[in-house]
Amino acid sequence: MSDTHSLDTLVQALRRLPGVGVRSAQRMAFHLLQHDREGARQLARALDAATSQVRHCTQCHTFTEAEVCATCADPRRDASKLCVVETPADQAAVERTAAFRGLYFVLMGRLSPLDGIGPRQIGLQKLIERATDGAVQEVILATNFTAEGEATAHVIGEALRARGLAVTRLARGVPAGSELEYVDLGTIAHALADRR
Amino acid sequence: MSDTHSLDTLVQALRRLPGVGVRSAQRMAFHLLQHDREGARQLARALDAATSQVRHCTQCHTFTEAEVCATCADPRRDASKLCVVETPADQAAVERTAAFRGLYFVLMGRLSPLDGIGPRQIGLQKLIERATDGAVQEVILATNFTAEGEATAHVIGEALRARGLAVTRLARGVPAGSELEYVDLGTIAHALADRR
Repeated sequence: MSDTHSLDTLVQALRRLPGVGVRSAQRMAFHLLQHDREGARQLARALDAATSQVRHCTQCHTFTEAEVCATCADPRRDASKLCVVETPADQAAVERTAAFRGLYFVLMGRLSPLDGIGPRQIGLQKLIERATDGAVQEVILATNFTAEGEATAHVIGEALRARGLAVTRLARGVPAGSELEYVDLGTIAHALADRR
Repeated sequence: MSDTHSLDTLVQALRRLPGVGVRSAQRMAFHLLQHDREGARQLARALDAATSQVRHCTQCHTFTEAEVCATCADPRRDASKLCVVETPADQAAVERTAAFRGLYFVLMGRLSPLDGIGPRQIGLQKLIERATDGAVQEVILATNFTAEGEATAHVIGEALRARGLAVTRLARGVPAGSELEYVDLGTIAHALADRR
């Protein structure tokens, strides 16, 4: 109906969000228009601000509003260690441990040939240049332990080792706090092989 | 971190959408900024357009950009029948059946005292005025068959019957295409009581 054009357009726009189907989009549009128009206006402003201001750190590729992100620009970080993660969320997870004081390289994705994401899309060449800057002595591969994350770690590891760099991978093993009875076989097998 | 202020603001704004927690909001922000900035800009424009242009039909309360919505303004609709629904989505569901040619009143919610939604918030007085305009001869209560929807139907039904209006409720019964074995007891009991 033509008298709800802007509502229909809003529902279509909301459907472009990941994980949002037509019913969720309708529910969101209804909620915003009926109960939270101020929230809708705030979201519009936030989208405009983020799309115009957020870019990629020239050093590590993560999202930032500056030329170089706060982590890369921090002189207290250990420049000899470079941790490779898939996304800013993964970087945040590593940061929360407070167990790593080095620098990061954020792939902003993972190798996924079927989706057209190859070495170029994850910035492999950029990573090689970054890792061979002379300061980096160890590259820690912290991609996810999924099939795609493992393949990504393998490809990056091969490329970096060929250039003489020390490359390590996050340890696989039994998660803290878990009971062996409920841990999957593959994890136990890896924990056995990597016992220390 | 101050160098991701607009990204943090975007994540906070996305969390105001119903059903979106912090992880979903982060995933949405990442997706929009990394893969679909055009989609983000479109969403911002759609939110602005909808919040400024969408209002409520003066006749039935549904969302519209006009004074009176297309359904209420359609002279081919049967003005003697008024169907009361909770939301525009429910109205759309009834419309899809093509089994109803009357007019609607959209409550834009349901009675929910614990959430502070009383008769005033669902426009009960407005509905009474609408239903007693002289043209309406039957009010069909099509609120949901949930506890709140049933309570809403009860309150509206009492108020309208007290003013001498004919009030009906959507039939309860076994859904089309279902096997009795898998239908819940309450539904079968209602279908028995309302047998025809």
